[in-house]
Parts: sequence; structure tokens; C-alpha cells
Amino acid sequence: MSIDETVKSYSAYVKKIMDFNEAIALAEWDMRTGAPKKGIPQRSEVVGTLSDEVFKRSTSDEMKDYLDALTEPSIQDKLSLVTKRMVEKSKKTYDHYVNIPAEENKAYVILQSEAQSVWQEAKAKSDFSLLSPYLEKMVAFKRKFIGYWGVKSKKYDALLDLYEPGLTVEMIDRIFGRLREAIVPLVESVTSSKDQPENDFLHVHFPADKQRAFCLHLLRENGYDFEAGRLDETEHPFEITLNPGDVRVTTNFQENDFISTVLGTVHEGGHALYEQHISRDLVGTPLCEGTSMGIHESQSLFFENFIGRSKAYWGLHYGELKRYASGQFDNVSLEEFYRAINVSHPSLIRTLADELTYPLHIMLRYDIEKALFDGDLEVKDLPGVWNEKMKEYLGIVPETDREGVLQDIHWPGGDFGYFPSYALGYVYAAQFKHAMLRDIPDFDVRVSGGSLAAITAWLSEHIHKFGSLKKPLEIVNDATGEEPNPEYLIRYLTEKYSDIYRL
Amino acid sequence: MSIDETVKSYSAYVKKIMDFNEAIALAEWDMRTGAPKKGIPQRSEVVGTLSDEVFKRSTSDEMKDYLDALTEPSIQDKLSLVTKRMVEKSKKTYDHYVNIPAEENKAYVILQSEAQSVWQEAKAKSDFSLLSPYLEKMVAFKRKFIGYWGVKSKKYDALLDLYEPGLTVEMIDRIFGRLREAIVPLVESVTSSKDQPENDFLHVHFPADKQRAFCLHLLRENGYDFEAGRLDETEHPFEITLNPGDVRVTTNFQENDFISTVLGTVHEGGHALYEQHISRDLVGTPLCEGTSMGIHESQSLFFENFIGRSKAYWGLHYGELKRYASGQFDNVSLEEFYRAINVSHPSLIRTLADELTYPLHIMLRYDIEKALFDGDLEVKDLPGVWNEKMKEYLGIVPETDREGVLQDIHWPGGDFGYFPSYALGYVYAAQFKHAMLRDIPDFDVRVSGGSLAAITAWLSEHIHKFGSLKKPLEIVNDATGEEPNPEYLIRYLTEKYSDIYRL
Repeated sequence: MSIDETVKSYSAYVKKIMDFNEAIALAEWDMRTGAPKKGIPQRSEVVGTLSDEVFKRSTSDEMKDYLDALTEPSIQDKLSLVTKRMVEKSKKTYDHYVNIPAEENKAYVILQSEAQSVWQEAKAKSDFSLLSPYLEKMVAFKRKFIGYWGVKSKKYDALLDLYEPGLTVEMIDRIFGRLREAIVPLVESVTSSKDQPENDFLHVHFPADKQRAFCLHLLRENGYDFEAGRLDETEHPFEITLNPGDVRVTTNFQENDFISTVLGTVHEGGHALYEQHISRDLVGTPLCEGTSMGIHESQSLFFENFIGRSKAYWGLHYGELKRYASGQFDNVSLEEFYRAINVSHPSLIRTLADELTYPLHIMLRYDIEKALFDGDLEVKDLPGVWNEKMKEYLGIVPETDREGVLQDIHWPGGDFGYFPSYALGYVYAAQFKHAMLRDIPDFDVRVSGGSLAAITAWLSEHIHKFGSLKKPLEIVNDATGEEPNPEYLIRYLTEKYSDIYRL
Repeated sequence: MSIDETVKSYSAYVKKIMDFNEAIALAEWDMRTGAPKKGIPQRSEVVGTLSDEVFKRSTSDEMKDYLDALTEPSIQDKLSLVTKRMVEKSKKTYDHYVNIPAEENKAYVILQSEAQSVWQEAKAKSDFSLLSPYLEKMVAFKRKFIGYWGVKSKKYDALLDLYEPGLTVEMIDRIFGRLREAIVPLVESVTSSKDQPENDFLHVHFPADKQRAFCLHLLRENGYDFEAGRLDETEHPFEITLNPGDVRVTTNFQENDFISTVLGTVHEGGHALYEQHISRDLVGTPLCEGTSMGIHESQSLFFENFIGRSKAYWGLHYGELKRYASGQFDNVSLEEFYRAINVSHPSLIRTLADELTYPLHIMLRYDIEKALFDGDLEVKDLPGVWNEKMKEYLGIVPETDREGVLQDIHWPGGDFGYFPSYALGYVYAAQFKHAMLRDIPDFDVRVSGGSLAAITAWLSEHIHKFGSLKKPLEIVNDATGEEPNPEYLIRYLTEKYSDIYRL
């Protein structure tokens, strides 16, 4: 076969894998949005069959032959960049799975499913001891896998690489260290400020159908393309990509907390814009998705925080909001509303945290994960360490493990190394905003004027369109001219919260 | 391999095919109920990839080996009935495709898609000459395929066998001959009756959300299990089965013709009950679906006509209907309402025909199909023959081909042999009703009392639970003690319409 023929045949082979993945994504969307419950057990088998197929094809001898042929050094200058990156990504998946003995991988998958189910019970009973043996096995598996992958330096680096390729403990220590230095004292000042904003009016009953209409309006205004997407209701909001022409979002209408619904919807809409803008040339390749969890989160947080929690945005939309609401904002000024939606105080649950305290929740999880894999922390000591760290970072301690170490599904799901992406995404978002201001100095004027086109075009041009063609650090460097730098986020939070809390 | 091992391995092989089919069905449901339009081209490729996979596996050497091993005469008495029937069905699919040369099948599939697209244009322009060359090729392909399948007797029998296995031209000639003798004069009497019912009040505006609520109510009352299904809105109503725990229906809310919506919904609900009640033991086998188009239609028509258009049913639901409506029935008696929803007159469009004239629309299509394959009718003569037959059967002639020969998608889609199922289903339904009365003599009392449980249990026990384990004629014979017999339908229509039109 000529090189061209090999590339063509490899591309067709990979396209089929992507088609199976799309069928799996559709089944998942369907199961989460309203599939009849009696059909779920059989539907899960369908997902199992399709996932098996993806696994087999991703690790097949045929795949190995393609990868061997296409990583041959002598032909590298004859391959397009897209092909090279496709091969790199296929090879990463191949190596990831092929190095783990099949029976161990199977045992791990079973453990994952058991641990998540035990976690629900442990959380309900607030009893860490139920989950502890499962987590121990989970950590042991992960350590073994890291061994199979032949990692030389820090073990935790191998886990970070699964979610944020290129980022290392060394870089994150530096970034999170600075965030901690700046945010911990800022939170203390905010908490002790005498000038706490009112926000009772945010919790007046706001009917779901009105929230829905308002959310549809905002998504449209933010550039979400409803010909390439749809909004449904689920218990937990999420974004899911079938293909770039079909990027769906969901939200949960909380009738006594509409602002959480609105900002949650805008957040998922940010994820969706990323996926809707990926270059159509990448459809059918493994590059047709956001490049990392962190870059993805940078896009959702950009919309949620830097747009959705800004005074400029509500300067535009507050009048419209009043038309959907039932009079609760009639005597509330824009300034009061803006302060209310940015109320900040230390709290126990990460997913409910405000934008100022949120990074601290991530940092404590990062410290713990790092110590589990490269330090001497043992699983049995997690609850104690959790509570100490809460005290250190946020000044409060949960009364139960349900509100503490048991709150997240990530660890029972085996997702160690995932958490840092949330805070990294936040750092990137602030840095993108800073870089964008060079090209769009009248950012606020555009936001308050309702013309986000130049802003989304900037994001598309520097981030979205590449899909996974660029690695996260390439995206950050090319878009901003520097490595990930926490100073922009620190400056944003310091200025914003000094203003809101009159520090 | 032992026989048991072969059966186990064959069953697992087939289960995967069924899983792929479920993924295809989900993709189709999604595309028809609200998938964003920009995602459709890529979604179609996903369906293509999955369908390819089903085709390859259904016609593979591995399948051939299983079929050879499991049709070995010496082991037949060691196989369960389910296995035998599974093998029979797999073999039918295998033989169907394997005998057609791959390139011809591909050309046929492309022609199908082209012809359906040309049909839309031809219908819009009411110009049969556009479609004619495509239909000619379609008929030529079908004739060739019939040759490959090695059919000895009537060619059209081979087409009937695709939709209603076991039924032949000989049987249908007999059945349709009797229907024609009885229905044509009955329609003439009804049309010339001096006592035509009023039905203007059926066309008063009925808001979609009220119709939706009422349809949900009726589906629930009819026994449709919403934990194993859901109702969505689409342009054309349909039922689609993902698995017996997930059987979905759709409807179209026609605000100026609510009774069409209601009866259409009840009709799809009848299809759905069939699929919801298939024995769970058959999940994952090719037997886990209705056994034929005709038996399927018998279940939808049983609910639409023998229940949904009965006086007993509205004796129960008319009061409730008034609560959902806007006053248009306040001065309409139950008797007047019952007569109105059963108004009958000859009309041009099959899908809009009433229950009395409907079979005539089918019979004319049957005559034409039969003449195309076993007579000397040519495609170019279809419009003329269509109009002659309309005159003969219904006494009216369409002014345009759009309302005549071009109205249905079946022929451009290659579905010759499908139409008779609609009328056969109707014959079966009347025959089932007659047999059911032996076990449930107080049928009307139960319907008007809102307790359909015994009725649906009877249908489940004699029809639904078997899926495709029994062939259509076995179902009819076992449930009613005789071959398909048109006299019950004739008696039903004669008695009912003599009453309504005071003949």
C-alpha cells in the first residue's frame, strides 16, 4: 500500500470507531433525558456491545499495523499535521489499553461500577468505611496501571496526562501555590467585610417554564446554534456532543434558585460553543472534540463567570429578566442585582461554591490526590485529611462525611487526576480574557451592547476550531503568548471582590 | 463444539446484531423527533456504519457456519422451539441477502433513496413521468431478485412473503374477493343514505396541549405502560420499538381535527401494546418483534376501530373529553358524537380514509401490484389503471396524480407486497374480536366500564407474547380456530354502518 492508501484506509477505519462513539453518546443522552426506565437494562447492554466494539477496534492488530506504518520516521514529512495528530491520539489510546492485561482491565471496570454504586450508599449513610475498601482497590489498580504505562517520574503526572496532557505536578504546584497565596486571604477579607450584599430576592419562586424561556433566550444571545443543538431538562446539567452539528445541553430548573439554573445553562452553553465551532474538517477523526478537560472548562467558565456574572452582561439582560420574572426585581437596582449574584462565602459543597471560593475546593482535592500517589497518604486517612484541609483553605469543617470527603463521584469512578482541570480551566479563562482584551479592548461595551460575535469569533479562531489538533499548552501559548499564568485570575478576583465587598 | 455450545455461541452472536439494531432504531427515533438538523448528515453516516455491521454479520461466514450446524437434520429434536425459530429467521435473512450479488444490492439501495427523493418532487408537481423511469428500474430489480430467490410459482407470492409470511395470492384473492362483494355495495348504500350524520363540531379548534393531555389519558387507560414508553410529537405518527421495555409512540396534534389525532394515537398505542407485551424471554433474539406487518396492523386497528370507534368506549370517555374540550360538545349527545366520528364517504387519499372505505384503497393497490409482477401491466400505464380502479371500487376519480397514483411512498421505496397487510390486519382484527367474545362475552360492558385488562390479557396471551415465535397464520389459527376469514369484518361493517346510516 502507498502512504496515501494507508492514510485513507486508516482514516476510514477510525471513522467507523467515531461512528460507534456517536451511537454510544446518543444512547447516553437518551438514558439521561427521558428514556423509559424499563428499557434501561437492555439499553445498557447495547452500550456495552458498542463500547466493546470501540475497544476491540482501538486495540486491534489492524490498528497496530496502521500505527506502525504511520509512525515510521522516514515518512513523517509526507504526512499532514491532521494525520500526524490523529495517529498520535490513536496511539495514545492503543498504548493506554494494550499495556493493561485484559483480565485486569475487566476487573477494574467492574470495580468502577461497584464502587460508584457503594458510594451512593456510603454518601446516603455518611459512612466512609463502606467505601474505603473499594477506594483502596481503586488506588491500587491505578498505581499498577501507572507501572504498566512505564512512568518514570511522578506517578501523579501519569494521571494528570489523562485529562490535561502536558501539565505536570511541577507546573500545577506553582500555579496553585500562587492561587492559594492570593485567594485564601481574599476570602477572609470578603467573609469579614461589614458590607455583605442582600440576595433574598434571588430565591423568590420563579416558574420553570419562565426560566426555560429565559434560558433559551440567553443561549441564543450567547451564540448557541439551535439548528445544531437542543436544550432538555435533567437532574444535573450537562453538555454532550454527538457531532459538531449536534451539540446538546441540558439544565435543571430550580424554581427557588433561578440564578443557579441560568448560570448553569450559560456554563453548559460555553462547553457547547466550543464543540459547535470545531472545524468540520475534523469530523470523523478522534481530533473532533475539545482538546482537554481544562480547555473545555475554560470555555464554560469564560461564559459563566467572565460574561454571565459580569455587570456588562446584566446591564443588557436585566430588563429582559424582569419581563420573565414575577415582580421580585422591581425594586432591585442593577448594582444590587449584580452584587447579589456574586455573593461569596466559604461553603462545604464544591458544586455549589461561588466563583471566588471554588478554586480552593479544587486545591484541597489536588493536595490529597498527589499525596495518595506520590506521598504516603493512605485511603483510610482521607476523611481526617479532608477536614484538616477544609479548615486550612476555607476555614470551615463539615459535620458529616456526606458533606465532606464523600461528596464527589470522581474518586469512586476512578477519576483521579481530573479535579485540577477545573481550576486550570479557570486560570486559562482569565488568561484568555486578558489576551482577548488586546484585540477587543471594548469587551465590556460589546457585552453590554449584546454583540458577542467578535468575542466568540476570537474564541473560535484561537481555541474552538482546532478541536484536539493542538494540545492544551499549545492552545494557551499560541492564544496568549505565555505559559499558564495564574496572575490574571488573581487580578480578576481581587479587583472584582474588592469592589463588591468594598474592601 | 457441542450442540449446547454452538447454540450459546450463535445466540451471543445474534444478540450483538440485535444490539446494533437497537442503536439504529434509537438513531431513527431521534432523527424523527427533534435531532438538530445540522447533525443529520453525520448521523446518517452513523446509521450507515451500524447497518453495514448488521448486514455483514447477518451474511458472514460465521453466520453460515452456525446455520449449517443448526439446520443439520439429525440434531433438530435436540433444539428448543425458540432456537429453531431463531435459526429459521436468521436463515431467511441470510438467504435473502446472500443470493443477491453485492453490487446489485448496492445499486438497488441507491435507487431506493433516489426514487424516494424523486417521488417527493413528482408528487409536488403531480407529474408521474418524473417517477416512471425509477419505478421501472425498481420493478425490474424486484423481478430479478425474485429470480435469485428461486421462486417457482407466482412472483408476487415472494413479495408477500417479505411482509406476511405464509399468505399467498390464492388466499388473498379469496379474502379480498369477498370483501369487495360486500363492501362496494355497502359503501354505495351509505353514500346514498338520506340520513347523513353531522360532524362540524369535530372541527372546532382544540388546542394542542389539551389534545396532548387527553391522548396521554387514553393511552394510559388503554394499558400503554409509560414506564416502558413515551409519547412525542412528529409530523407523521409512528410506533418504534427499541426493546420491549422501551416502545415509543408519536402523534401529530391537529388542532382542527382532534379526532384524527386521538384515533391515530390510539392506533399507534395498539402497535405499542403488542411490542410491550412480547415475552421478555425473547429479548436479544430476532423473534423479539411483531411477527408480521398484518398481525401488527391487526393490533393497531383493533384498538383504533373495534375499541376507539365504538359506542362503548365513548360512553366511558365522552365526559372526560368534554372536560378537555372548549364547549363544542356541550349540546352534542353521545349518539351524535358516535355517528360523527364514524362518518364515511369515498375519498381519494388512503391515509385519510374512514374505516369502511379503507379496505377498498388497499384492494386497488393489490390488484395493481399483482398485475405488475404476474400480469402484463407496465409501469407507464399505472396512472390510467389507478383511475379506472378508483372508479370501480370507490366511484370517484382523482383530478391529479398527486391525489392518485403518486400519493404513497411505498412503491418508490421498493415496498411492493406491503399494502395487502393493512387490509389483512383488519380482517384478522375482526376475527380476533369474534373469537375473543367467546371468552369475554361482556366485551362492551368492560369497554364502557373502563376495564380493558381482560381484553389486553387475551391479546397478550393469544398474540402479543409470542413475538415472532409463531408465524401469522399460526397466530390466527391458534387464536381463532380457523384460517383468515373475511366474514367477521364484513358482518362488523354491515351491522355498524346499517345502524349509523339507518339503512
